[in-house]
Amino acid sequence: GYGRTAVDYVEGRDQEAQVSARVRLNVHATTSTDQGVDFGARVRAQWDQGDAGIDSVSPGQIYVTASGLTVAVGNVGTAFDNAGLLYSSEVGLISRSFGNPSGAFFAYSSKAYGSNTFLTECDDELEVPCSTIVDNQSRNRLGVSVEYAVDALKARFSYVDPNQTVGGTTEEIGVSVDYNWNDIALSAAAVKDGAGESGNDQYFLGAYYTLAGTENGVGLNYIDNNSSDTFVLYGDYVVAPLTTLSAYVSNNDAAGNDTDTAFGLGARYDLGGAYLAGSLERGYDKNVRGDFGVRFDF
Amino acid sequence: GYGRTAVDYVEGRDQEAQVSARVRLNVHATTSTDQGVDFGARVRAQWDQGDAGIDSVSPGQIYVTASGLTVAVGNVGTAFDNAGLLYSSEVGLISRSFGNPSGAFFAYSSKAYGSNTFLTECDDELEVPCSTIVDNQSRNRLGVSVEYAVDALKARFSYVDPNQTVGGTTEEIGVSVDYNWNDIALSAAAVKDGAGESGNDQYFLGAYYTLAGTENGVGLNYIDNNSSDTFVLYGDYVVAPLTTLSAYVSNNDAAGNDTDTAFGLGARYDLGGAYLAGSLERGYDKNVRGDFGVRFDF
Amino acid sequence: GYGRTAVDYVEGRDQEAQVSARVRLNVHATTSTDQGVDFGARVRAQWDQGDAGIDSVSPGQIYVTASGLTVAVGNVGTAFDNAGLLYSSEVGLISRSFGNPSGAFFAYSSKAYGSNTFLTECDDELEVPCSTIVDNQSRNRLGVSVEYAVDALKARFSYVDPNQTVGGTTEEIGVSVDYNWNDIALSAAAVKDGAGESGNDQYFLGAYYTLAGTENGVGLNYIDNNSSDTFVLYGDYVVAPLTTLSAYVSNNDAAGNDTDTAFGLGARYDLGGAYLAGSLERGYDKNVRGDFGVRFDF
Repeated sequence: GYGRTAVDYVEGRDQEAQVSARVRLNVHATTSTDQGVDFGARVRAQWDQGDAGIDSVSPGQIYVTASGLTVAVGNVGTAFDNAGLLYSSEVGLISRSFGNPSGAFFAYSSKAYGSNTFLTECDDELEVPCSTIVDNQSRNRLGVSVEYAVDALKARFSYVDPNQTVGGTTEEIGVSVDYNWNDIALSAAAVKDGAGESGNDQYFLGAYYTLAGTENGVGLNYIDNNSSDTFVLYGDYVVAPLTTLSAYVSNNDAAGNDTDTAFGLGARYDLGGAYLAGSLERGYDKNVRGDFGVRFDF
Repeated sequence: GYGRTAVDYVEGRDQEAQVSARVRLNVHATTSTDQGVDFGARVRAQWDQGDAGIDSVSPGQIYVTASGLTVAVGNVGTAFDNAGLLYSSEVGLISRSFGNPSGAFFAYSSKAYGSNTFLTECDDELEVPCSTIVDNQSRNRLGVSVEYAVDALKARFSYVDPNQTVGGTTEEIGVSVDYNWNDIALSAAAVKDGAGESGNDQYFLGAYYTLAGTENGVGLNYIDNNSSDTFVLYGDYVVAPLTTLSAYVSNNDAAGNDTDTAFGLGARYDLGGAYLAGSLERGYDKNVRGDFGVRFDF
Repeated sequence: GYGRTAVDYVEGRDQEAQVSARVRLNVHATTSTDQGVDFGARVRAQWDQGDAGIDSVSPGQIYVTASGLTVAVGNVGTAFDNAGLLYSSEVGLISRSFGNPSGAFFAYSSKAYGSNTFLTECDDELEVPCSTIVDNQSRNRLGVSVEYAVDALKARFSYVDPNQTVGGTTEEIGVSVDYNWNDIALSAAAVKDGAGESGNDQYFLGAYYTLAGTENGVGLNYIDNNSSDTFVLYGDYVVAPLTTLSAYVSNNDAAGNDTDTAFGLGARYDLGGAYLAGSLERGYDKNVRGDFGVRFDF
């Protein structure tokens, strides 16, 4: 897991500068059979500043792995959400980008299904009616995922039934593929009926090119969010040892935007075991947000 | 703890085939004094498919052990529920049997006292008014248990006060004894005022005979559930290395039964560190249920 | 963490003798950077007899330590509550004393902000309107603490904003200092706007003298609880190897007291890894309370 804390500035909210913090603990129990098959169970306990406590540990996941093939049941990561480059334009400590997908789809649930965190996000960003999304955050949600990794290829499939105890629900189906080819990483993903909403299909294509012999690179993502399209061009540049600058510019054609162009700048300094990071972004509502803080993994 | 997942078929419910899953994590902290007395504390975090998350870690238990005698306070296992052979006719991955006791009594609580899981079970199976049982699932429940183990003998006593902060409650008292004698295991138990319901007394007698030099055996259980009696005859047979078949036939004379005879068949294949298991049963309502899946311990 | 259980007698309540129990688990994850800076995250899971389960793990804390200086963010221990001698007149297994502070101030939260435990305490003991205190137990509470330790000196500062997401809240500010000088320990603390209630200022001064070459000692505390003053004189005496007797007499001038003088006696026997302890006290309402039980740390 990890811990992080940052000052988080968001222009236009009641108290523009607030402190953000997160403690994430992953509990991971495994066993291996005599045939070399690995079985495991996962849960996550996560606290974010603004939660009264860890009101609920996450729903559980059971998985089995053998020869590069992993099948998981329960609270699974989904193929679309796990696509390798989907979030790679993110900057700053809190890892945000206006070039991220803006549609609704299922993902690994860090807290209880239907928790407040999800509802809050719902109000802010989604393009499918929140009521539908919330209804689909049922305690009877069931996910199944399959991942296959071989050499430079990773392929994923996921299936999520919003409520397996009743008939007539719309299941979300997703696929994604990552492939590394010399200095180029490619990633593609699709999700049908995202978040269990019929017709809420979304698509993603991304590529990242690393300059040979460096950690400098440049990437381009295209996301069809169903009700809008997002293009984002981004890059990373190591300006000094341990110090990386990142930047992105994204274009989104959603109807309600004040502007279709957003951009962000980020910096990160590696402390060895922890890092300092900060960012400054301007969004589609022309408001500025920024963060600065520290994160460490354990 | 352990993880398990199975396809669970229950005839007659809205969606007959559903996926069942459980992640159980036992947290167990101990210390030893200079005199060789062991002190410990336990809590359990358990998620079942159908829970929104681990909404509550179980109530705690404090215990002390010395010279085979263990005294526990808090959320204790009860003498009746822990009787050695009470559940030994169970088959399949989810470990179910229509030969299990159908009365209400206290047991170790894997989730919060009065959690939804209990309420759900209440609707399905209990023979004492649910309202009484639910009222007794108070957050002020207090249990005390004593267990004594010496050679082939295990004796247990337990006491549960549904609410220690008010007067006038009816406490549940239970005793059980297990004894191994050559190839025969014997088990007996009694509970007075089960689940804190006055007059809800229950009794159990069981025996299991193992064929010398094998793991094949046959057992017979008798349970007085207070409002009905259950007899169950069951057996296990190792048909091939690592592969065990089990079966039972049970008779219950409860008033509302469509039939008084239920039976079940189970199979289990050991993977070494994990096992596959499946079952098929027919209940007192003439409906069929079955499961097939995998479980691993860690 | 630790486990403890005791018989708890409180004169005048419905069931005077009840069993008290607690299981406390501290989860502490750390990492160190190459520069020798330590980062850590903490959460606590605590169950008390009377809780239906561990309904919520505590809010998290993120901290960084270097060269004796520790800065923490989130659910922090506060300067006033952590003053070295503030609770040192406590006796018995449950660690209680009528010489403890009776005012309201923030402290490390072992359960969710605003949990029932706090509400219960609120009814019993606080001198500021409960409604105010409860309102301040917001999920958006934000604490920052600074501690500096060098040689015999420990200095603390803390700041708690009851709700960082809205304007107009009153923040609690606290400071405390501990100093050891030969056989004398000194401790002083002050808190401004305790529990976020404007004008709820409190002060503390304490000293403890240990007889050279022994573990016997005597201490004196003065607490200005804002609406009352408390003086408490207390002492500890090792009567036999591993056996310590403690006693205190306290004076509090609050308006509603039946008597202004309370006193307590305690005994503790060390088992090596665990201890037995008991106490008998008489409070300002002339009622007697006592406990006897065992505690062990792990």
